[in-house]
Amino acid sequence: MSQDKTKEVATPALGRRKFLNTAAIASLGTLVACNEKPGSAAASASPASAAGHAASSASHLKPGELDTYYGLWSGGHTGDMRVLGLPSGREIHRIPCFVPDALVGWGVTNESKKIMGTKADGSLKYTVADSHHTHASYKDGNYDGRYAWINDKINSRIARIRLDYFVCDKITQLPNVQGFHGIFPDKRDPVDEKINYTTRVFCGGEFAIPMPNTGSEDSSKYRSMFSCVDAETMEVRWQVLIDGNCDLVATSYDGKLAATNQYNTEMGAHYEDMMSAERDACLFYNVARIEAAVKAGKFKTIGDSKVPVVDGTREANKDPKTALTAYVSVPKNPHGVNASPDGKYFICAGKLSPTGTVIDLSKVLDWFDGKSEKLDAAIVAEVELGLGPLHTAFDGRGNAYTTLFLDSQVVKWNVEAAIKFHAGDKNAKYVVDRLDVQYQPGHLNASQSETKAADGKYLAVGCKFSKDRFLPVGPLHPENEQMIDISGDKMILMADHPVRGEPHDFIIFKRDLVRPKQVYDLNDFPNAIKDPKESGVVRNGKKVTVKMTSQAPAFSLREFTVKKGDEVTLILTNLDKIEDLTHGFAIPNHNVNFIVNPQETASVTFIAGNPGVYWCYCTHFCHALHLEMRTRMIVEA
Amino acid sequence: MSQDKTKEVATPALGRRKFLNTAAIASLGTLVACNEKPGSAAASASPASAAGHAASSASHLKPGELDTYYGLWSGGHTGDMRVLGLPSGREIHRIPCFVPDALVGWGVTNESKKIMGTKADGSLKYTVADSHHTHASYKDGNYDGRYAWINDKINSRIARIRLDYFVCDKITQLPNVQGFHGIFPDKRDPVDEKINYTTRVFCGGEFAIPMPNTGSEDSSKYRSMFSCVDAETMEVRWQVLIDGNCDLVATSYDGKLAATNQYNTEMGAHYEDMMSAERDACLFYNVARIEAAVKAGKFKTIGDSKVPVVDGTREANKDPKTALTAYVSVPKNPHGVNASPDGKYFICAGKLSPTGTVIDLSKVLDWFDGKSEKLDAAIVAEVELGLGPLHTAFDGRGNAYTTLFLDSQVVKWNVEAAIKFHAGDKNAKYVVDRLDVQYQPGHLNASQSETKAADGKYLAVGCKFSKDRFLPVGPLHPENEQMIDISGDKMILMADHPVRGEPHDFIIFKRDLVRPKQVYDLNDFPNAIKDPKESGVVRNGKKVTVKMTSQAPAFSLREFTVKKGDEVTLILTNLDKIEDLTHGFAIPNHNVNFIVNPQETASVTFIAGNPGVYWCYCTHFCHALHLEMRTRMIVEA
Repeated sequence: MSQDKTKEVATPALGRRKFLNTAAIASLGTLVACNEKPGSAAASASPASAAGHAASSASHLKPGELDTYYGLWSGGHTGDMRVLGLPSGREIHRIPCFVPDALVGWGVTNESKKIMGTKADGSLKYTVADSHHTHASYKDGNYDGRYAWINDKINSRIARIRLDYFVCDKITQLPNVQGFHGIFPDKRDPVDEKINYTTRVFCGGEFAIPMPNTGSEDSSKYRSMFSCVDAETMEVRWQVLIDGNCDLVATSYDGKLAATNQYNTEMGAHYEDMMSAERDACLFYNVARIEAAVKAGKFKTIGDSKVPVVDGTREANKDPKTALTAYVSVPKNPHGVNASPDGKYFICAGKLSPTGTVIDLSKVLDWFDGKSEKLDAAIVAEVELGLGPLHTAFDGRGNAYTTLFLDSQVVKWNVEAAIKFHAGDKNAKYVVDRLDVQYQPGHLNASQSETKAADGKYLAVGCKFSKDRFLPVGPLHPENEQMIDISGDKMILMADHPVRGEPHDFIIFKRDLVRPKQVYDLNDFPNAIKDPKESGVVRNGKKVTVKMTSQAPAFSLREFTVKKGDEVTLILTNLDKIEDLTHGFAIPNHNVNFIVNPQETASVTFIAGNPGVYWCYCTHFCHALHLEMRTRMIVEA
Repeated sequence: MSQDKTKEVATPALGRRKFLNTAAIASLGTLVACNEKPGSAAASASPASAAGHAASSASHLKPGELDTYYGLWSGGHTGDMRVLGLPSGREIHRIPCFVPDALVGWGVTNESKKIMGTKADGSLKYTVADSHHTHASYKDGNYDGRYAWINDKINSRIARIRLDYFVCDKITQLPNVQGFHGIFPDKRDPVDEKINYTTRVFCGGEFAIPMPNTGSEDSSKYRSMFSCVDAETMEVRWQVLIDGNCDLVATSYDGKLAATNQYNTEMGAHYEDMMSAERDACLFYNVARIEAAVKAGKFKTIGDSKVPVVDGTREANKDPKTALTAYVSVPKNPHGVNASPDGKYFICAGKLSPTGTVIDLSKVLDWFDGKSEKLDAAIVAEVELGLGPLHTAFDGRGNAYTTLFLDSQVVKWNVEAAIKFHAGDKNAKYVVDRLDVQYQPGHLNASQSETKAADGKYLAVGCKFSKDRFLPVGPLHPENEQMIDISGDKMILMADHPVRGEPHDFIIFKRDLVRPKQVYDLNDFPNAIKDPKESGVVRNGKKVTVKMTSQAPAFSLREFTVKKGDEVTLILTNLDKIEDLTHGFAIPNHNVNFIVNPQETASVTFIAGNPGVYWCYCTHFCHALHLEMRTRMIVEA
């Protein structure tokens, strides 16, 4: 590997720090200036020891070996959710949700179009998306394998994924929200202790807009919106009007608090205005009080939306006794808020400040309860971590791991030591280890990190730039998902994995927390053709229904005849019962292709084209006679 | 790994052979009966030796190590081309071509829509595809790194990929073709020896249809079509009307011959008719004679197409002295035809016959030249390999590797030994090794296999069923791309890789054969905004042009104003020059998102929606102030 000609040609000799200086912080003089803290930028070399080699090969599974953890990854502006196996880092599945998927026929079948949403003419409302964050439903502080949710930032949509079949079953568009960013399910009800599982999903609105959106140019009057979606019905329960731009969302283990880290509390419209103030906020929501206010009718509605909106702006919530929200101050333009697995703290990363801020949740509740006069007394630590801190994960042993975007590092630090240091014990060494990553890390997450069962085994880091880490493939680079062993004192880099842009957040959990089903139940589909004898063509004026079944290596109809201009609805049930025996169905020149998994039913509706013979064929390899598995559509004049 | 609860729950205890009997050959009594050859079905266990472990970990690269081979993979009905690194098996890139891609904005930008093709209303003509085969341009018998091509079976399209930028630049739809399947570039000109590189791409039409496609039900009159596409212009040069259904295509190293393996020479419309005859054909095309006939005007045209069509049916080509085509007989429903790297042979796999047929190209040329009376004398071997042989790869050391779909094996066999055996030497042991694969392999290919530089290092096998090899992810299983070390006498399984359905064919070549460019040239884009000062809004009635540039962390326009109902064309040039510094551009609720790589220009056209403020934002992580990188579109009433 040392005689690496391709690498030499493709990547001119830019040193690591040179790259940092040119790419990541280009034209950001002010930021660099305000962050010049020499000590915190010093990198320790990553270990190239025998232990490192052992850990590295541990991510390689022998043929047939199964991964021990699942990872759910957001797909970024690819618009999907991805399922990875860990520690191998292999992508096992992509779950289409917001955007069409040609393999599945997502956006082609009537069933998927109904979930995605269509315009009056039947075409898809949206074919682009930008999914950032994915989180799963909880019970007793751990994942319960029911659902995961994922956001679309561009069009303010939230999708739900069923974790039995690994499919998207519902999508909701949030009203009065632009740039829906962070997402987090609650972990229990704030009032009813029996409800020790997820019933709400909180959604942070990033972009501030006029409410209602009239198009006014005066950005000082813009506001953003925090939304609560019902986990079961997927309807929006209520919204909170707020100051600043939401980035991430976190929820407490007792169900009482949610929080968003807010940048641009300045309400600026240009980036230099957005970073003008020295401190922004970690904004806490008192869930029980908000729901009581809604119940008491203390809300308004905005525009066409019927969703109750309460006032959570700073100005309207100065009195702790009645406040619905609380704005804890954190350094400028924070990025990421994460809940520690012991349930005690939320941690905000500084982004434009080199710090991590530790907020004690009991002290935030004290403020709401009138037991604490100063809200910022809830800040129990604010310590230097390095340049560009973004997100934080946990190992369940008291340590936090924070990505440093500008330093291209992960820093491991001890939370209690940081609290001691902040309290005045300057001998408290809170930084435990640093590891260079390649390059510019955004999100990171550790195995089971955001649960009470955080196990401190693996850490994945989503590096936004991969630069010279993979064979060159033209101008669009993959990102570099790096796997790190965090089971010991020192972090050990295990493997680089190229990923198609642009995963943001992800969760990693033990494989026994989900119980996937690999064959559908025929009864789940009201329009299933349960017997090949039910196959046939039914005409009702220009509307034609074609009923068909598939059983390798044949479709139940050998041929079927329709007329040019007919509106044809074709219903296909896969009667094969064997796991992995999926069939496809394509019609040439009619823009139809979709799959039916074992015991699944799907349907498509299309207009029959010009007269001719059209060979419809199975597109999903099924059998030795797969190529011969066809039916003829004969279109008459 | 032995206490694998998930595995136990998800996959009931089906033995390997039980699975074969239920899934792959379900309801195929006739096939099993006609293939009962006990000896050829016997599997030798795969080695679990120390050598096996060493080879296995060789596919794991340490962090930062680069792969030594590129792989170009078809994406199946995902509709894309994929770029893998070998031996790691990591997917580095997906190249959108036939179907939209939300990450890139393929199908969203005006530039990509022009390549993909649109309907009169500006919407995409097709959003589904089924890509099976990909091959790259040749020079002197090896890849030259200019182009790769890939087929869309559903809509009979061929796409060209530029291997400098790894992007699709042209797509052509073939006339008179349904089910365009195999594809192969020529390796030199049959007449002009100076043209020792690819100038033609041959395309096999699979489905036989009425010519022209009137919709007649009488399948005995259906025919299929073999097409020649110009490698540079991507226009169809000529077509050949033929008998049978084309599967794969192969081309000779001297440029004189192309061939397709034909099943269903019976011209049946139902699968039992398609497999009724005992032998089908490997159909050879005399390229020079066909082009001479076209030049001499000996062709017709069909329907609206202007492409010259010559008659290549069996009936019209009985006289070797004038024949344009030659139908060498091969056992029933052959699958796959592959050219040996020594330039001597084409090998057809039997599919429904347990055999491989070796055809000597010099003897086919002898027949065309009148030197051989019996065309089938060109068959120099027809030997038993195992159940369900599909495709063949080569190691450059005289050995062939054939997938056995029903046996779930790869068989390694020596071609010259097979020829000796066929000639009567029953002591010639042509089977060298067998390896179980998991499960039901379709295509396989070896490093550099289809070039004169075949190096016999790695073999990849596309297994159509993965079943229990990965964590369960619901009913849709990934496929299993297995990596095999073929450098020694025995094949050694290195790794399992899950891949999203449904790759078919692929090629593997040394990394120094391509020289990718990672930054675009501003001058390649006629509409580039070369200076931020050129930014602005130009109105022409209801048509509005918005010109903008991106340079992290800002767009050149802070805001821009349009009116409801305007047809807005937005042109964006990324002026950042640093490798990997891609920006995105999304407009909420307008279904717009696309990326601009360093020095790239792209444009979108959309209708401005309801009055309001729309925050357009960068969707591709670029900078510490990425979240703040926005511009406001203000839509007035």
